[in-house]
Amino acid sequence: MCKESVMSELTKTVGVIGLGLIGGSMAIDLKRRGYAQTVLGVEQDSVAAEAARTIGLVDETVSYEDCIRRADIVVVAVPVSSAVNLLPDILDRFTDGQIVIDVCSTKGRICHATQYHPRRGQYVSTHPMAGTEYSGPWAAQPGLFDGRACIFADSEKSSPRALKAVEELYDVLHMRPIYMNADQHDVHTAYVSHISHITSFALALTVLDKEKDEKHIFDLASGGFSSTVRLAKSSADMWVPILSQNHDNVLRVMDTYIGKMQAFRDAVAGYDEEKIRELIREANKIKKILR
Amino acid sequence: MCKESVMSELTKTVGVIGLGLIGGSMAIDLKRRGYAQTVLGVEQDSVAAEAARTIGLVDETVSYEDCIRRADIVVVAVPVSSAVNLLPDILDRFTDGQIVIDVCSTKGRICHATQYHPRRGQYVSTHPMAGTEYSGPWAAQPGLFDGRACIFADSEKSSPRALKAVEELYDVLHMRPIYMNADQHDVHTAYVSHISHITSFALALTVLDKEKDEKHIFDLASGGFSSTVRLAKSSADMWVPILSQNHDNVLRVMDTYIGKMQAFRDAVAGYDEEKIRELIREANKIKKILR
Repeated sequence: MCKESVMSELTKTVGVIGLGLIGGSMAIDLKRRGYAQTVLGVEQDSVAAEAARTIGLVDETVSYEDCIRRADIVVVAVPVSSAVNLLPDILDRFTDGQIVIDVCSTKGRICHATQYHPRRGQYVSTHPMAGTEYSGPWAAQPGLFDGRACIFADSEKSSPRALKAVEELYDVLHMRPIYMNADQHDVHTAYVSHISHITSFALALTVLDKEKDEKHIFDLASGGFSSTVRLAKSSADMWVPILSQNHDNVLRVMDTYIGKMQAFRDAVAGYDEEKIRELIREANKIKKILR
Repeated sequence: MCKESVMSELTKTVGVIGLGLIGGSMAIDLKRRGYAQTVLGVEQDSVAAEAARTIGLVDETVSYEDCIRRADIVVVAVPVSSAVNLLPDILDRFTDGQIVIDVCSTKGRICHATQYHPRRGQYVSTHPMAGTEYSGPWAAQPGLFDGRACIFADSEKSSPRALKAVEELYDVLHMRPIYMNADQHDVHTAYVSHISHITSFALALTVLDKEKDEKHIFDLASGGFSSTVRLAKSSADMWVPILSQNHDNVLRVMDTYIGKMQAFRDAVAGYDEEKIRELIREANKIKKILR
Protein backbone atom coordinates (compact mmCIF):
# COMPACT_ATOMS: atom_id res chain seq x y z
CA MET A 1 0.00 0.00 0.00
CA CYS A 2 1.22 3.39 -0.87
CA LYS A 3 0.51 5.85 1.92
CA GLU A 4 0.56 9.14 0.13
CA SER A 5 1.93 11.95 2.22
CA VAL A 6 0.42 15.40 2.04
CA MET A 7 3.08 16.97 4.17
CA SER A 8 6.18 15.49 2.59
CA GLU A 9 5.78 17.76 -0.41
CA LEU A 10 4.09 20.46 1.61
CA THR A 11 5.73 20.98 4.93
CA LYS A 12 8.94 22.80 4.77
CA THR A 13 8.44 25.33 7.49
CA VAL A 14 6.54 25.01 10.77
CA GLY A 15 5.86 28.14 12.79
CA VAL A 16 5.21 27.76 16.51
CA ILE A 17 3.53 30.66 18.29
CA GLY A 18 4.21 30.34 22.01
CA LEU A 19 7.40 28.51 23.01
CA GLY A 20 6.17 27.04 26.27
CA LEU A 21 5.93 23.43 27.39
CA ILE A 22 3.64 22.33 24.54
CA GLY A 23 4.89 24.55 21.72
CA GLY A 24 8.52 23.94 22.66
CA SER A 25 8.11 20.18 22.92
CA MET A 26 6.40 20.06 19.52
CA ALA A 27 9.18 22.14 18.02
CA ILE A 28 11.78 19.67 19.28
CA ASP A 29 10.17 16.50 17.92
CA LEU A 30 8.86 17.94 14.64
CA LYS A 31 12.38 19.01 13.79
CA ARG A 32 14.22 15.93 15.12
CA ARG A 33 11.84 13.52 13.47
CA GLY A 34 12.05 15.25 10.12
CA TYR A 35 8.53 16.58 9.79
CA ALA A 36 9.77 20.15 9.65
CA GLN A 37 12.71 21.35 7.64
CA THR A 38 12.70 24.66 9.49
CA VAL A 39 10.99 25.59 12.75
CA LEU A 40 10.23 29.26 13.33
CA GLY A 41 9.32 30.41 16.83
CA VAL A 42 7.30 33.38 18.01
CA GLU A 43 7.59 34.32 21.67
CA GLN A 44 6.40 37.63 23.11
CA ASP A 45 8.15 37.25 26.43
CA SER A 46 11.75 38.32 25.87
CA VAL A 47 13.22 36.11 28.61
CA ALA A 48 11.42 33.05 27.30
CA ALA A 49 12.45 33.91 23.74
CA GLU A 50 16.09 34.21 24.81
CA ALA A 51 15.85 30.90 26.66
CA ALA A 52 14.32 29.20 23.62
CA ARG A 53 17.22 30.45 21.50
CA THR A 54 19.80 29.36 24.09
CA ILE A 55 18.26 25.91 24.41
CA GLY A 56 17.95 25.70 20.65
CA LEU A 57 14.24 24.88 20.59
CA VAL A 58 13.74 26.50 17.18
CA ASP A 59 15.85 27.39 14.18
CA GLU A 60 14.90 31.04 14.34
CA THR A 61 12.76 33.34 16.46
CA VAL A 62 10.79 35.72 14.29
CA SER A 63 8.00 38.26 14.48
CA TYR A 64 4.39 37.16 14.41
CA GLU A 65 3.93 38.67 10.94
CA ASP A 66 7.04 36.97 9.59
CA CYS A 67 5.93 33.66 11.00
CA ILE A 68 2.50 33.82 9.33
CA ARG A 69 4.11 34.88 6.06
CA ARG A 70 6.71 32.10 5.97
CA ALA A 71 5.17 29.08 7.66
CA ASP A 72 3.41 26.25 5.84
CA ILE A 73 1.89 25.11 9.12
CA VAL A 74 1.37 27.42 12.08
CA VAL A 75 0.96 25.92 15.56
CA VAL A 76 -0.81 28.21 18.04
CA ALA A 77 0.36 27.20 21.51
CA VAL A 78 -0.64 30.14 23.72
CA PRO A 79 -3.29 30.32 26.47
CA VAL A 80 -6.76 29.81 25.05
CA SER A 81 -7.82 33.38 25.87
CA SER A 82 -5.19 34.68 23.45
CA ALA A 83 -5.60 31.92 20.90
CA VAL A 84 -9.28 32.74 20.48
CA ASN A 85 -8.32 36.20 19.20
CA LEU A 86 -5.24 35.11 17.24
CA LEU A 87 -6.89 32.47 15.11
CA PRO A 88 -9.23 34.69 13.06
CA ASP A 89 -6.36 37.10 12.53
CA ILE A 90 -4.07 34.34 11.31
CA LEU A 91 -6.73 33.07 8.90
CA ASP A 92 -7.22 36.64 7.65
CA ARG A 93 -3.53 36.85 6.80
CA PHE A 94 -3.28 33.40 5.23
CA THR A 95 -2.82 32.64 1.56
CA ASP A 96 -4.17 29.43 0.05
CA GLY A 97 -2.52 26.25 1.24
CA GLN A 98 -1.32 27.46 4.62
CA ILE A 99 -2.60 25.54 7.63
CA VAL A 100 -3.05 26.56 11.27
CA ILE A 101 -3.66 24.36 14.29
CA ASP A 102 -4.29 25.25 17.89
CA VAL A 103 -3.43 22.99 20.83
CA CYS A 104 -5.69 24.51 23.49
CA SER A 105 -7.37 22.60 26.30
CA THR A 106 -10.85 23.99 25.64
CA LYS A 107 -12.38 23.78 22.20
CA GLY A 108 -15.91 25.18 22.32
CA ARG A 109 -15.30 28.90 22.20
CA ILE A 110 -12.34 28.76 19.84
CA CYS A 111 -14.25 26.62 17.35
CA HIS A 112 -17.29 28.86 17.57
CA ALA A 113 -15.16 31.99 17.04
CA THR A 114 -13.82 30.65 13.74
CA GLN A 115 -16.71 28.62 12.38
CA TYR A 116 -17.87 31.06 9.71
CA HIS A 117 -14.44 32.26 8.65
CA PRO A 118 -14.05 31.91 4.87
CA ARG A 119 -10.72 30.11 5.47
CA ARG A 120 -12.11 27.79 8.20
CA GLY A 121 -11.02 24.79 6.13
CA GLN A 122 -7.38 25.76 6.69
CA TYR A 123 -7.76 25.45 10.46
CA VAL A 124 -7.52 22.16 12.37
CA SER A 125 -8.55 22.29 16.01
CA THR A 126 -6.65 19.85 18.22
CA HIS A 127 -5.92 19.06 21.84
CA PRO A 128 -2.84 16.92 22.38
CA MET A 129 -3.52 15.39 25.82
CA ALA A 130 -0.01 15.53 27.20
CA GLY A 131 1.89 17.79 29.51
CA THR A 132 3.58 18.17 32.83
CA GLU A 133 2.95 20.59 35.67
CA TYR A 134 5.83 22.76 34.50
CA SER A 135 5.70 25.58 31.99
CA GLY A 136 7.95 27.70 29.81
CA PRO A 137 10.61 26.80 27.25
CA TRP A 138 12.65 25.25 30.10
CA ALA A 139 9.94 22.63 30.50
CA ALA A 140 9.93 21.52 26.86
CA GLN A 141 11.12 17.97 26.33
CA PRO A 142 11.43 15.42 23.53
CA GLY A 143 8.95 12.55 23.52
CA LEU A 144 6.34 14.44 25.56
CA PHE A 145 3.49 13.33 23.30
CA ASP A 146 4.54 9.73 22.65
CA GLY A 147 1.67 7.29 23.11
CA ARG A 148 -0.84 9.90 24.31
CA ALA A 149 -4.19 10.78 22.79
CA CYS A 150 -4.78 13.80 20.57
CA ILE A 151 -8.31 15.05 20.16
CA PHE A 152 -9.41 16.50 16.84
CA ALA A 153 -12.41 18.77 17.44
CA ASP A 154 -14.98 19.49 14.70
CA SER A 155 -12.60 17.93 12.20
CA GLU A 156 -15.29 17.83 9.51
CA LYS A 157 -14.93 21.61 9.26
CA SER A 158 -11.29 21.32 8.19
CA SER A 159 -10.45 20.67 4.55
CA PRO A 160 -9.45 17.04 3.88
CA ARG A 161 -6.00 18.22 2.84
CA ALA A 162 -5.42 20.27 6.01
CA LEU A 163 -6.77 17.48 8.19
CA LYS A 164 -4.50 14.93 6.56
CA ALA A 165 -1.42 17.09 7.00
CA VAL A 166 -2.19 17.58 10.69
CA GLU A 167 -2.95 13.88 11.20
CA GLU A 168 0.51 13.23 9.82
CA LEU A 169 2.00 15.81 12.13
CA TYR A 170 0.51 14.07 15.19
CA ASP A 171 1.50 10.70 13.80
CA VAL A 172 5.08 11.93 13.83
CA LEU A 173 4.52 12.88 17.48
CA HIS A 174 3.29 9.29 18.08
CA MET A 175 -0.16 10.38 19.21
CA ARG A 176 -3.42 8.43 18.89
CA PRO A 177 -6.09 10.52 17.15
CA ILE A 178 -9.59 10.74 18.67
CA TYR A 179 -12.38 12.63 16.93
CA MET A 180 -15.24 14.43 18.64
CA ASN A 181 -17.11 17.67 18.39
CA ALA A 182 -15.90 20.71 20.28
CA ASP A 183 -18.72 20.74 22.82
CA GLN A 184 -18.34 17.04 23.64
CA HIS A 185 -14.63 17.65 24.10
CA ASP A 186 -15.28 20.33 26.68
CA VAL A 187 -17.66 18.13 28.67
CA HIS A 188 -15.26 15.19 28.78
CA THR A 189 -12.13 17.18 29.58
CA ALA A 190 -13.96 18.96 32.41
CA TYR A 191 -14.53 15.55 33.99
CA VAL A 192 -11.25 13.90 33.22
CA SER A 193 -8.74 16.74 33.19
CA HIS A 194 -9.95 20.08 34.50
CA ILE A 195 -11.41 18.79 37.76
CA SER A 196 -8.19 16.99 38.68
CA HIS A 197 -6.32 20.28 38.47
CA ILE A 198 -8.86 21.99 40.70
CA THR A 199 -8.72 19.20 43.31
CA SER A 200 -4.93 19.55 43.34
CA PHE A 201 -5.10 23.31 43.77
CA ALA A 202 -7.52 22.87 46.67
CA LEU A 203 -5.30 20.21 48.24
CA ALA A 204 -2.26 22.47 48.08
CA LEU A 205 -4.26 25.35 49.57
CA THR A 206 -5.43 23.10 52.41
CA VAL A 207 -2.01 21.81 53.30
CA LEU A 208 -0.34 25.22 52.97
CA ASP A 209 -3.05 26.71 55.15
CA LYS A 210 -2.77 24.13 57.90
CA GLU A 211 0.85 23.10 57.91
CA LYS A 212 2.57 26.32 58.79
CA ASP A 213 5.75 24.38 59.24
CA GLU A 214 6.96 23.72 55.70
CA LYS A 215 9.52 21.24 56.92
CA HIS A 216 6.75 18.91 58.02
CA ILE A 217 5.22 18.94 54.56
CA PHE A 218 8.56 18.17 53.03
CA ASP A 219 9.42 15.46 55.53
CA LEU A 220 6.07 13.74 55.54
CA ALA A 221 5.19 14.03 51.87
CA SER A 222 5.10 10.46 50.66
CA GLY A 223 4.95 9.54 47.00
CA GLY A 224 1.17 9.49 47.27
CA PHE A 225 0.82 13.07 48.42
CA SER A 226 3.37 14.31 45.92
CA SER A 227 1.57 12.75 42.97
CA THR A 228 -1.83 14.00 44.12
CA VAL A 229 -0.67 17.57 44.65
CA ARG A 230 1.61 17.68 41.61
CA LEU A 231 -0.85 19.47 39.34
CA ALA A 232 -1.13 22.32 41.86
CA LYS A 233 2.12 23.58 40.37
CA SER A 234 0.32 24.33 37.10
CA SER A 235 0.41 27.86 35.76
CA ALA A 236 -2.34 30.40 36.41
CA ASP A 237 -1.78 31.93 32.97
CA MET A 238 -2.87 28.68 31.40
CA TRP A 239 -5.58 27.64 33.83
CA VAL A 240 -7.55 30.82 34.46
CA PRO A 241 -8.65 30.98 30.79
CA ILE A 242 -9.44 27.25 30.69
CA LEU A 243 -11.69 27.42 33.74
CA SER A 244 -13.25 30.58 32.45
CA GLN A 245 -13.94 29.30 28.92
CA ASN A 246 -15.23 25.95 30.12
CA HIS A 247 -17.26 27.64 32.84
CA ASP A 248 -20.53 25.67 32.70
CA ASN A 249 -18.98 22.22 32.48
CA VAL A 250 -16.39 22.99 35.14
CA LEU A 251 -19.03 24.30 37.51
CA ARG A 252 -21.16 21.20 37.02
CA VAL A 253 -18.29 18.83 37.73
CA MET A 254 -17.18 20.85 40.77
CA ASP A 255 -20.66 20.57 42.21
CA THR A 256 -20.66 16.82 41.69
CA TYR A 257 -17.24 16.61 43.29
CA ILE A 258 -18.19 18.70 46.30
CA GLY A 259 -21.23 16.42 46.71
CA LYS A 260 -18.99 13.32 46.76
CA MET A 261 -16.63 14.93 49.29
CA GLN A 262 -19.61 15.87 51.44
CA ALA A 263 -20.92 12.28 51.35
CA PHE A 264 -17.50 11.08 52.41
CA ARG A 265 -17.31 13.67 55.14
CA ASP A 266 -20.73 12.72 56.48
CA ALA A 267 -19.78 9.04 56.58
CA VAL A 268 -16.60 9.86 58.53
CA ALA A 269 -18.45 12.27 60.84
CA GLY A 270 -21.09 9.62 61.56
CA TYR A 271 -18.51 6.88 62.23
CA ASP A 272 -20.28 4.99 59.44
CA GLU A 273 -17.57 2.48 58.53
CA GLU A 274 -19.90 0.52 56.26
CA LYS A 275 -20.59 3.62 54.18
CA ILE A 276 -16.90 4.59 54.04
CA ARG A 277 -16.07 1.08 52.87
CA GLU A 278 -18.78 1.26 50.22
CA LEU A 279 -17.48 4.63 48.91
CA ILE A 280 -13.88 3.39 48.76
CA ARG A 281 -14.89 0.16 47.00
CA GLU A 282 -16.87 2.19 44.48
CA ALA A 283 -13.88 4.52 43.92
CA ASN A 284 -11.63 1.45 43.51
CA LYS A 285 -13.47 0.68 40.26
CA ILE A 286 -11.18 3.22 38.60
CA LYS A 287 -8.67 0.33 38.69
CA LYS A 288 -10.57 -1.45 35.97
CA ILE A 289 -10.13 1.53 33.67
CA LEU A 290 -6.70 2.90 34.56
CA ARG A 291 -4.04 0.34 35.32
CA MET B 1 34.66 5.38 64.91
CA CYS B 2 33.20 2.12 66.03
CA LYS B 3 29.45 2.08 65.56
CA GLU B 4 28.32 -0.60 67.96
CA SER B 5 25.48 -2.66 66.63
CA VAL B 6 22.73 -3.92 68.89
CA MET B 7 21.19 -6.07 66.25
CA SER B 8 24.25 -7.77 64.86
CA GLU B 9 24.44 -9.95 67.94
CA LEU B 10 20.72 -9.84 68.53
CA THR B 11 18.77 -10.24 65.36
CA LYS B 12 18.69 -13.66 63.99
CA THR B 13 15.02 -14.05 63.25
CA VAL B 14 12.50 -11.44 62.08
CA GLY B 15 8.82 -12.32 62.12
CA VAL B 16 6.48 -10.40 59.86
CA ILE B 17 2.78 -10.51 60.64
CA GLY B 18 0.83 -9.55 57.52
CA LEU B 19 2.53 -10.22 54.18
CA GLY B 20 1.04 -7.33 52.23
CA LEU B 21 2.73 -4.47 50.42
CA ILE B 22 4.55 -3.13 53.50
CA GLY B 23 5.25 -6.36 55.38
CA GLY B 24 6.29 -8.15 52.21
CA SER B 25 8.58 -5.36 51.05
CA MET B 26 10.25 -5.24 54.48
CA ALA B 27 10.74 -9.00 54.41
CA ILE B 28 12.50 -8.78 51.05
CA ASP B 29 15.00 -6.08 51.98
CA LEU B 30 15.68 -7.18 55.57
CA LYS B 31 16.68 -10.57 54.25
CA ARG B 32 18.57 -9.43 51.14
CA ARG B 33 20.49 -6.80 53.01
CA GLY B 34 21.51 -9.18 55.77
CA TYR B 35 19.62 -7.70 58.70
CA ALA B 36 17.66 -10.91 59.17
CA GLN B 37 19.09 -14.37 59.08
CA THR B 38 15.64 -15.88 58.89
CA VAL B 39 12.33 -14.21 58.03
CA LEU B 40 9.16 -15.86 59.30
CA GLY B 41 5.83 -14.80 57.86
CA VAL B 42 2.34 -14.94 59.32
CA GLU B 43 -0.55 -14.52 56.90
CA GLN B 44 -4.17 -15.37 57.74
CA ASP B 45 -5.43 -15.21 54.20
CA SER B 46 -4.60 -18.58 52.63
CA VAL B 47 -4.34 -17.27 49.06
CA ALA B 48 -1.99 -14.47 50.12
CA ALA B 49 0.05 -16.93 52.20
CA GLU B 50 0.39 -19.28 49.24
CA ALA B 51 1.39 -16.35 47.02
CA ALA B 52 4.00 -15.21 49.54
CA ARG B 53 5.48 -18.72 49.55
CA THR B 54 5.45 -18.92 45.76
CA ILE B 55 7.11 -15.53 45.38
CA GLY B 56 9.55 -16.45 48.13
CA LEU B 57 8.89 -13.38 50.29
CA VAL B 58 9.80 -15.22 53.52
CA ASP B 59 11.80 -18.25 54.52
CA GLU B 60 8.87 -19.89 56.20
CA THR B 61 5.19 -19.19 56.87
CA VAL B 62 4.28 -20.11 60.41
CA SER B 63 1.46 -19.75 62.91
CA TYR B 64 1.06 -16.58 64.92
CA GLU B 65 2.07 -18.37 68.10
CA ASP B 66 5.15 -19.88 66.48
CA CYS B 67 6.17 -16.51 65.14
CA ILE B 68 5.97 -14.82 68.54
CA ARG B 69 7.86 -17.69 70.11
CA ARG B 70 10.72 -17.74 67.63
CA ALA B 71 11.21 -14.15 66.44
CA ASP B 72 13.74 -11.73 67.92
CA ILE B 73 11.92 -8.86 66.24
CA VAL B 74 8.26 -9.00 65.28
CA VAL B 75 6.92 -6.59 62.64
CA VAL B 76 3.16 -6.03 62.81
CA ALA B 77 2.03 -5.03 59.32
CA VAL B 78 -1.74 -5.50 59.40
CA PRO B 79 -4.52 -2.87 59.26
CA VAL B 80 -4.44 -0.63 62.31
CA SER B 81 -7.80 -1.92 63.59
CA SER B 82 -6.25 -5.39 63.99
CA ALA B 83 -2.86 -4.16 65.12
CA VAL B 84 -4.37 -2.29 68.04
CA ASN B 85 -5.62 -5.61 69.43
CA LEU B 86 -2.61 -7.67 68.47
CA LEU B 87 0.04 -5.54 70.15
CA PRO B 88 -0.97 -6.03 73.79
CA ASP B 89 -1.35 -9.75 73.11
CA ILE B 90 2.12 -9.95 71.58
CA LEU B 91 3.65 -8.10 74.52
CA ASP B 92 1.80 -10.49 76.87
CA ARG B 93 3.44 -13.45 75.15
CA PHE B 94 6.93 -11.94 74.97
CA THR B 95 9.94 -12.98 76.95
CA ASP B 96 12.67 -10.49 77.82
CA GLY B 97 14.67 -9.16 74.90
CA GLN B 98 12.09 -9.65 72.18
CA ILE B 99 11.06 -6.54 70.29
CA VAL B 100 7.87 -5.67 68.40
CA ILE B 101 7.26 -2.82 65.97
CA ASP B 102 4.12 -1.76 64.15
CA VAL B 103 4.10 0.07 60.83
CA CYS B 104 0.58 1.52 60.95
CA SER B 105 -0.47 4.86 59.46
CA THR B 106 -2.17 6.15 62.60
CA LYS B 107 -0.34 6.18 65.88
CA GLY B 108 -2.58 7.74 68.54
CA ARG B 109 -4.87 4.89 69.45
CA ILE B 110 -2.25 2.16 69.12
CA CYS B 111 0.17 4.04 71.38
CA HIS B 112 -2.53 4.75 73.91
CA ALA B 113 -3.64 1.09 73.95
CA THR B 114 -0.17 -0.07 74.94
CA GLN B 115 1.13 2.80 77.07
CA TYR B 116 0.75 1.12 80.47
CA HIS B 117 1.75 -2.37 79.38
CA PRO B 118 4.56 -3.68 81.62
CA ARG B 119 6.53 -4.60 78.51
CA ARG B 120 5.92 -1.24 76.74
CA GLY B 121 9.70 -0.74 76.48
CA GLN B 122 9.90 -3.69 74.08
CA TYR B 123 7.57 -1.98 71.61
CA VAL B 124 8.70 0.62 69.05
CA SER B 125 5.94 2.46 67.23
CA THR B 126 6.84 3.45 63.67
CA HIS B 127 5.33 4.66 60.44
CA PRO B 128 7.48 4.11 57.39
CA MET B 129 6.11 6.69 54.94
CA ALA B 130 6.29 4.65 51.78
CA GLY B 131 3.90 2.65 49.71
CA THR B 132 2.07 2.37 46.46
CA GLU B 133 -1.64 2.21 45.68
CA TYR B 134 -1.42 -1.57 45.35
CA SER B 135 -1.78 -4.16 48.09
CA GLY B 136 -1.09 -7.80 48.86
CA PRO B 137 2.09 -9.89 48.63
CA TRP B 138 2.02 -9.36 44.84
CA ALA B 139 2.64 -5.66 45.43
CA ALA B 140 5.74 -6.16 47.60
CA GLN B 141 8.94 -4.87 46.04
CA PRO B 142 12.59 -4.38 46.93
CA GLY B 143 13.73 -0.83 47.58
CA LEU B 144 10.25 0.44 48.46
CA PHE B 145 11.52 2.35 51.49
CA ASP B 146 14.77 3.73 50.09
CA GLY B 147 15.18 7.45 50.80
CA ARG B 148 11.78 7.89 52.45
CA ALA B 149 11.01 9.13 55.95
CA CYS B 150 10.15 6.85 58.85
CA ILE B 151 8.35 8.34 61.81
CA PHE B 152 9.12 7.06 65.30
CA ALA B 153 6.17 7.87 67.55
CA ASP B 154 6.53 8.24 71.33
CA SER B 155 10.01 6.78 71.03
CA GLU B 156 10.90 7.79 74.59
CA LYS B 157 8.56 5.03 75.78
CA SER B 158 10.69 2.36 74.10
CA SER B 159 13.75 0.98 75.87
CA PRO B 160 17.01 2.41 74.49
CA ARG B 161 18.04 -1.07 73.40
CA ALA B 162 14.79 -1.73 71.49
CA LEU B 163 14.88 1.72 69.93
CA LYS B 164 18.44 1.27 68.77
CA ALA B 165 17.69 -2.11 67.19
CA VAL B 166 14.75 -0.66 65.29
CA GLU B 167 16.70 2.41 64.20
CA GLU B 168 19.23 -0.02 62.74
CA LEU B 169 16.45 -1.93 61.01
CA TYR B 170 15.20 1.22 59.28
CA ASP B 171 18.74 2.25 58.50
CA VAL B 172 19.08 -1.00 56.59
CA LEU B 173 15.90 -0.01 54.73
CA HIS B 174 17.58 3.35 53.93
CA MET B 175 14.94 5.41 55.71
CA ARG B 176 15.38 8.81 57.38
CA PRO B 177 14.16 8.73 60.99
CA ILE B 178 11.85 11.49 62.25
CA TYR B 179 10.72 11.62 65.86
CA MET B 180 7.42 12.99 67.11
CA ASN B 181 4.72 12.11 69.56
CA ALA B 182 1.81 9.95 68.47
CA ASP B 183 -0.77 12.71 68.53
CA GLN B 184 1.38 15.11 66.52
CA HIS B 185 1.91 12.33 64.02
CA ASP B 186 -1.81 11.90 63.52
CA VAL B 187 -2.37 15.62 62.96
CA HIS B 188 0.40 15.90 60.38
CA THR B 189 -0.45 12.74 58.48
CA ALA B 190 -4.10 13.79 58.28
CA TYR B 191 -2.96 16.91 56.43
CA VAL B 192 -0.21 15.48 54.32
CA SER B 193 -1.31 11.91 53.66
CA HIS B 194 -4.87 11.02 54.63
CA ILE B 195 -6.58 13.95 52.90
CA SER B 196 -4.86 13.21 49.60
CA HIS B 197 -6.34 9.72 49.63
CA ILE B 198 -9.80 11.10 50.30
CA THR B 199 -9.54 13.67 47.50
CA SER B 200 -8.53 10.87 45.13
CA PHE B 201 -11.43 8.69 46.20
CA ALA B 202 -13.82 11.61 45.62
CA LEU B 203 -12.26 12.32 42.22
CA ALA B 204 -12.70 8.71 41.13
CA LEU B 205 -16.31 8.72 42.35
CA THR B 206 -17.00 11.93 40.40
CA VAL B 207 -15.54 10.70 37.15
CA LEU B 208 -17.11 7.24 37.43
CA ASP B 209 -20.45 8.85 38.18
CA LYS B 210 -20.37 11.23 35.26
CA GLU B 211 -18.45 9.43 32.57
CA LYS B 212 -20.66 6.43 31.93
CA ASP B 213 -18.56 5.64 28.91
CA GLU B 214 -15.41 4.06 30.35
CA LYS B 215 -13.62 4.33 27.04
CA HIS B 216 -13.67 8.11 27.30
CA ILE B 217 -11.97 7.98 30.68
CA PHE B 218 -9.33 5.67 29.35
CA ASP B 219 -8.78 7.67 26.17
CA LEU B 220 -8.75 11.09 27.76
CA ALA B 221 -6.85 10.31 30.92
CA SER B 222 -3.66 12.27 30.63
CA GLY B 223 -0.72 11.77 32.94
CA GLY B 224 -2.13 14.48 35.17
CA PHE B 225 -5.44 12.80 35.80
CA SER B 226 -3.82 9.40 36.31
CA SER B 227 -1.45 10.66 38.95
CA THR B 228 -4.18 12.57 40.77
CA VAL B 229 -6.59 9.65 40.85
CA ARG B 230 -3.95 6.99 41.50
CA LEU B 231 -4.52 6.77 45.25
CA ALA B 232 -8.20 5.96 44.62
CA LYS B 233 -7.02 2.42 43.97
CA SER B 234 -6.03 2.09 47.63
CA SER B 235 -7.56 -0.71 49.64
CA ALA B 236 -10.65 -0.23 51.81
CA ASP B 237 -9.30 -2.77 54.34
CA MET B 238 -6.40 -0.43 55.05
CA TRP B 239 -8.17 2.92 54.77
CA VAL B 240 -11.42 2.41 56.65
CA PRO B 241 -9.54 1.84 59.95
CA ILE B 242 -7.18 4.76 59.30
CA LEU B 243 -10.00 7.23 58.68
CA SER B 244 -11.88 5.83 61.62
CA GLN B 245 -8.98 5.95 64.08
CA ASN B 246 -7.86 9.39 62.98
CA HIS B 247 -11.45 10.60 62.98
CA ASP B 248 -11.11 14.06 64.53
CA ASN B 249 -8.08 15.17 62.55
CA VAL B 250 -9.45 13.78 59.30
CA LEU B 251 -12.76 15.53 59.78
CA ARG B 252 -11.03 18.83 60.48
CA VAL B 253 -8.90 18.64 57.37
CA MET B 254 -11.87 17.58 55.23
CA ASP B 255 -13.77 20.63 56.39
CA THR B 256 -10.86 22.89 55.50
CA TYR B 257 -10.59 21.20 52.13
CA ILE B 258 -14.30 21.51 51.36
CA GLY B 259 -14.02 25.21 52.27
CA LYS B 260 -11.16 25.68 49.77
CA MET B 261 -13.11 23.87 47.05
CA GLN B 262 -16.14 26.01 47.80
CA ALA B 263 -14.08 29.20 47.52
CA PHE B 264 -12.77 27.98 44.19
CA ARG B 265 -16.26 27.09 43.04
CA ASP B 266 -17.63 30.49 44.00
CA ALA B 267 -14.85 32.25 42.11
CA VAL B 268 -15.59 30.17 38.99
CA ALA B 269 -19.36 30.65 39.39
CA GLY B 270 -18.88 34.44 39.70
CA TYR B 271 -16.57 34.65 36.66
CA ASP B 272 -14.08 36.16 39.10
CA GLU B 273 -10.86 35.62 37.15
CA GLU B 274 -8.82 37.73 39.57
CA LYS B 275 -9.85 35.50 42.48
CA ILE B 276 -9.18 32.29 40.52
CA ARG B 277 -5.74 33.62 39.62
CA GLU B 278 -5.07 34.47 43.26
CA LEU B 279 -6.09 30.99 44.43
CA ILE B 280 -3.95 29.25 41.81
CA ARG B 281 -0.94 31.45 42.60
CA GLU B 282 -1.34 30.66 46.29
CA ALA B 283 -1.58 26.93 45.52
CA ASN B 284 1.53 27.22 43.33
CA LYS B 285 3.55 27.90 46.49
CA ILE B 286 3.65 24.15 47.01
CA LYS B 287 6.42 24.31 44.37
CA LYS B 288 8.75 25.86 46.88
CA ILE B 289 8.35 22.86 49.16
CA LEU B 290 7.99 19.92 46.80
CA ARG B 291 10.14 20.01 43.71
